[in-house]
Amino acid sequence: MDPFDLVVLGAGPGGSTAALRAAELGMKVACIDRRAAPGGTCLHIGCIPSKALLESSRIFALARDDMARHGVVTDAVRLDLATMMKRKDRAVRQLARGLGSRFAQSTITILSGTARVESPTSVRVDGTDGSSRLLHARHILVATGSRPAPLPFAPFDGERILSSEEALALDRVPESLLVVGAGAIGLELGSVWNRLGTRVTLVEAQERILPSMDAAITEEAADLFTRQGLAIRTNTTVRSLLPALSGVSITLDPEEALDASLALVAIGRTPGTRGLGLEEAGVILRPDGTVEVDETLTTNVPTIHALGDVTPGPMVAHRAEEEGMALAEALSGRPARKRPAAIPEVVYTHPEVASVGRTGQDLQEADESFSVGTFSYRANGRARTAGETHGTVRMLCRRESGALLGVHILGAGAGDLANEASLAIHQGCTADDLAASSHAHPTFGEALRGAALAALSA
Amino acid sequence: MDPFDLVVLGAGPGGSTAALRAAELGMKVACIDRRAAPGGTCLHIGCIPSKALLESSRIFALARDDMARHGVVTDAVRLDLATMMKRKDRAVRQLARGLGSRFAQSTITILSGTARVESPTSVRVDGTDGSSRLLHARHILVATGSRPAPLPFAPFDGERILSSEEALALDRVPESLLVVGAGAIGLELGSVWNRLGTRVTLVEAQERILPSMDAAITEEAADLFTRQGLAIRTNTTVRSLLPALSGVSITLDPEEALDASLALVAIGRTPGTRGLGLEEAGVILRPDGTVEVDETLTTNVPTIHALGDVTPGPMVAHRAEEEGMALAEALSGRPARKRPAAIPEVVYTHPEVASVGRTGQDLQEADESFSVGTFSYRANGRARTAGETHGTVRMLCRRESGALLGVHILGAGAGDLANEASLAIHQGCTADDLAASSHAHPTFGEALRGAALAALSA
Repeated sequence: MDPFDLVVLGAGPGGSTAALRAAELGMKVACIDRRAAPGGTCLHIGCIPSKALLESSRIFALARDDMARHGVVTDAVRLDLATMMKRKDRAVRQLARGLGSRFAQSTITILSGTARVESPTSVRVDGTDGSSRLLHARHILVATGSRPAPLPFAPFDGERILSSEEALALDRVPESLLVVGAGAIGLELGSVWNRLGTRVTLVEAQERILPSMDAAITEEAADLFTRQGLAIRTNTTVRSLLPALSGVSITLDPEEALDASLALVAIGRTPGTRGLGLEEAGVILRPDGTVEVDETLTTNVPTIHALGDVTPGPMVAHRAEEEGMALAEALSGRPARKRPAAIPEVVYTHPEVASVGRTGQDLQEADESFSVGTFSYRANGRARTAGETHGTVRMLCRRESGALLGVHILGAGAGDLANEASLAIHQGCTADDLAASSHAHPTFGEALRGAALAALSA
Repeated sequence: MDPFDLVVLGAGPGGSTAALRAAELGMKVACIDRRAAPGGTCLHIGCIPSKALLESSRIFALARDDMARHGVVTDAVRLDLATMMKRKDRAVRQLARGLGSRFAQSTITILSGTARVESPTSVRVDGTDGSSRLLHARHILVATGSRPAPLPFAPFDGERILSSEEALALDRVPESLLVVGAGAIGLELGSVWNRLGTRVTLVEAQERILPSMDAAITEEAADLFTRQGLAIRTNTTVRSLLPALSGVSITLDPEEALDASLALVAIGRTPGTRGLGLEEAGVILRPDGTVEVDETLTTNVPTIHALGDVTPGPMVAHRAEEEGMALAEALSGRPARKRPAAIPEVVYTHPEVASVGRTGQDLQEADESFSVGTFSYRANGRARTAGETHGTVRMLCRRESGALLGVHILGAGAGDLANEASLAIHQGCTADDLAASSHAHPTFGEALRGAALAALSA
C-alpha cells in the first residue's frame, strides 16, 4: 500500500489546518486524534468555550451593574447558569460541525485513537474502536498540543482541584475560587466567575500578572481587575493545596492560610510529547518537553515535523494554525510565505489585554534605545460613547528609525487592534507609516494612530 | 499688529486639528467657530452623540431580545429615554471638555462668532458678544464643514421634518418615522429608533442602500436590516412631504401615500461655503458648493486653504482631521507625510458596515481585472462565541499582483477591521502579505486573513 504523504498527530488548530491544506494541495493525508471530532483543546475545552462564557458573563455583569445608566431599566437580574452553559456548548458544537464537514468533504483519512511514532516513517494507531493499524508516512507531523500542568503536590482531581477544562463546566456558581496563576487562563476564568458572583483570589508567583506582557500595561490592568473585584496576590506561591471537608485549604508563601470552595490551577501548560515514541524514533526532546524545529518546522529527524504548543514559542492557537498552513504548503513544494514577524497574544478580560512584538522590559534588558508613544482610551471618541474609557495603547519604536518594535494594549477591542499592529510590525512599518494611514472616526483603532503620533513627538 | 500665521474658520475635527497642530509647531493661530466650544458637528450633533445612542439602544435591544439566551434573566425591560439622552449628552460634554482644555492650554486665539473672508489675507469676525474684529492672516483655512441638505420642497421645521440634529434629541419615542435617504446617517438613526420601538421606513432614491459602498456587501446588509424591522424602499423618491395634523403626510414615487409621526431627511450634506466671502476673495466654488484644492490643500488663491467636507471627497471626520494635521505640518515647513491611500467609511449599525478602497462596481466600470476573496462571519470563532455570525469580509485584489484594491465588511467590529485594511492598502500590501501576518485567535480580524487566503485561491 502506498504510504501517506503526511500523517498528522493531533487535530487541533495546527494539525487540522495542516491536514486540510495538505489534502487540498493533493497530498495523501491521515490525521489522528483522541477525540472523535477535530478542533483540539482550543475548540472543545479552551479558547472557544471560554470566550462564550466571557461574553455571556459580561452581559450578566452589564445587566446587573451598567444598564441603568443607559436608560435600560429592569427589575432584579437573575442568572440561569444552565442556559449559559448550553449556549457555550452550542457555540462549540456549531464550530465543530463546520470543521467536521470540511474534514468530511476532504480526502483525509480520519482516525480516532492514540498514535505512536514507530519509526521516522511509520505511525501506529490504536483506534478507539479497538483496532490497531500501522501507517507508513513520507512525513509525520507532531501537532499534539499541550495539557494543563498540575501543581506537583496537588494533582487535578476534577472535583475541587480543577483544570481550565472543569472550570469551564461548573454546574453552579462557587462561593469562592482560588486561582493559581494570573496568566491569560487564570484571568479569563477568574473574570467569568467573579462576574457571576464568586469571590475570586488569584495567586501569582511572579511579581506581576501576565508576566510575559509589557509591564506598564499589565500594571494598569491589575489595578482595573482589582477594582472589578478580583483579589490579586503577586510574589506569592502555593505551599500546599488540599481538599477539605467543604472545598480546599491552601497555605501560601508568604505564610497565610486560605479556604475556598474550589481551586483552579492555571500555572501553565505541558507540551504533549511524552509517550508518543518520539525519543525512540530519534527526536530530541528538550527538558521542558518541547521539540526544537528549524524554520521549515522540521525536527532533528528530517521526516518528523512539529508545530504549535509542542515547539518553543507562545502557546496560542493562531501560531499553530499559521504554522500548519506553512508546513502543508512547503511540503507540497509551494514557495514559502514570509513567516510572521510577531505573534499577537490576547487576554479576553474586560477590557481585553493584547500584546504584539517586544515589551519594554525586553528592550531594556537588551539595552536598546526606544521611544514610547501612549494614548489613553479616555481621549478616544468611540470609547467615550461606548463607556469603555479604561485603557491605554503603548507603542514602542526604534529610536533612530521609528520602526515599530512592540504594541501593547489594554482596552476595548484590543485584540483586533493588535492584529493591525501585527501587520504593521510584519510589514516593517514606522510610527509615521501608521500615523499616515487613515483610521476611521470614531473607532477604537484611532487610539493606535494616536499612540503613533505620540511616539513621533516623544 | 503682526498678522496671524493661520486663521482657521471652523473648529470641527479638521479646523481644530489644524489649529492645535499649527500652534504646537510655533505658529500664531486664530480659530473661529459659531459655537462657544470646539468640536464642530461631529462632536456636538453628529458622530459622537449618534454613537452614544447607538450603543445605548443596542443595549436596550439586547436586554429585550437576546439576554435570555445567555442565561441572563430579567422581568420586563423598560426604556428611560431621558436617562439615555443624558448619558449621550454627558459623553459629548466630556469629550468637549477634553478638547476645550487642549485649546485653553494652547496659544490659539479662540473667537466665537461668524467669520467672513474679506481678502486673501484678512478675515472679519463678528463675535457672538457683538464685537467686530479684522484679523490679518498669512494663511486662511476654510474648515467650515457641512450642513444637512433639506428636500427642496420640504424645509426642516425642527418639529416634524427633522434633520439629524433633532432626530438625536427627541424627548419621546415616536410611533413611526419616515427616513428619507438610506445612507450612513439614515441607517444609523433609523436603527436607533427602530430598536427603541418606532416603526421605521427608509426611502432611498437609488437602487440600493449605502450606494457609495460595495454592492455585494450592501445587499447583504439590506437583508439583515430588513430582518431587524427596518422597512426599506429603494428606487423610491419623495414627491411631497407635508406636516399634517398629527405628524407628516408623504407621497412617494412610485405613487404611494404614507403617514408617519415624524420625518427625518438625511439625503446628504451641503458644504458650508456660502456667505463666507470666498468668491469675492477670488476662490472658485464648484456648482455643488465644494472648493477644489491641490495636494497641498490650497485653493486657487495661494493663501486660502480648505479641507474636509468643504472639499470634494468623503464627508467623514477623520479625513478632515488627517488633512488638518497635514496642512499644519506643511505650513510650518515640515516634510510632507504620505497622504492616505484610502479613506475608510463606517456605518455604525449592528453589525457595522465598513468600506475602504475601491468597490466591485468601481472596478467593473473601469474594466479592471480583479479577484475576490470572501469570508463569512459564520466561520469565525469569535463571532460564534459573541453571537455575531451575520456578515462577510469581501476583499478585492488586483488579479496579476494580488495587491489589495478594496476591502468591504459587514460584521461585528467592521470599523476596526477597516482600519487594518486601510493600513494594508496604504502600505501597498498584497493578499499574501495580509495572510502572512499573524492574526490572534479568536478575533474578528481573523476574518480578514480568511478573506485574503480565499482571494489567493480565487
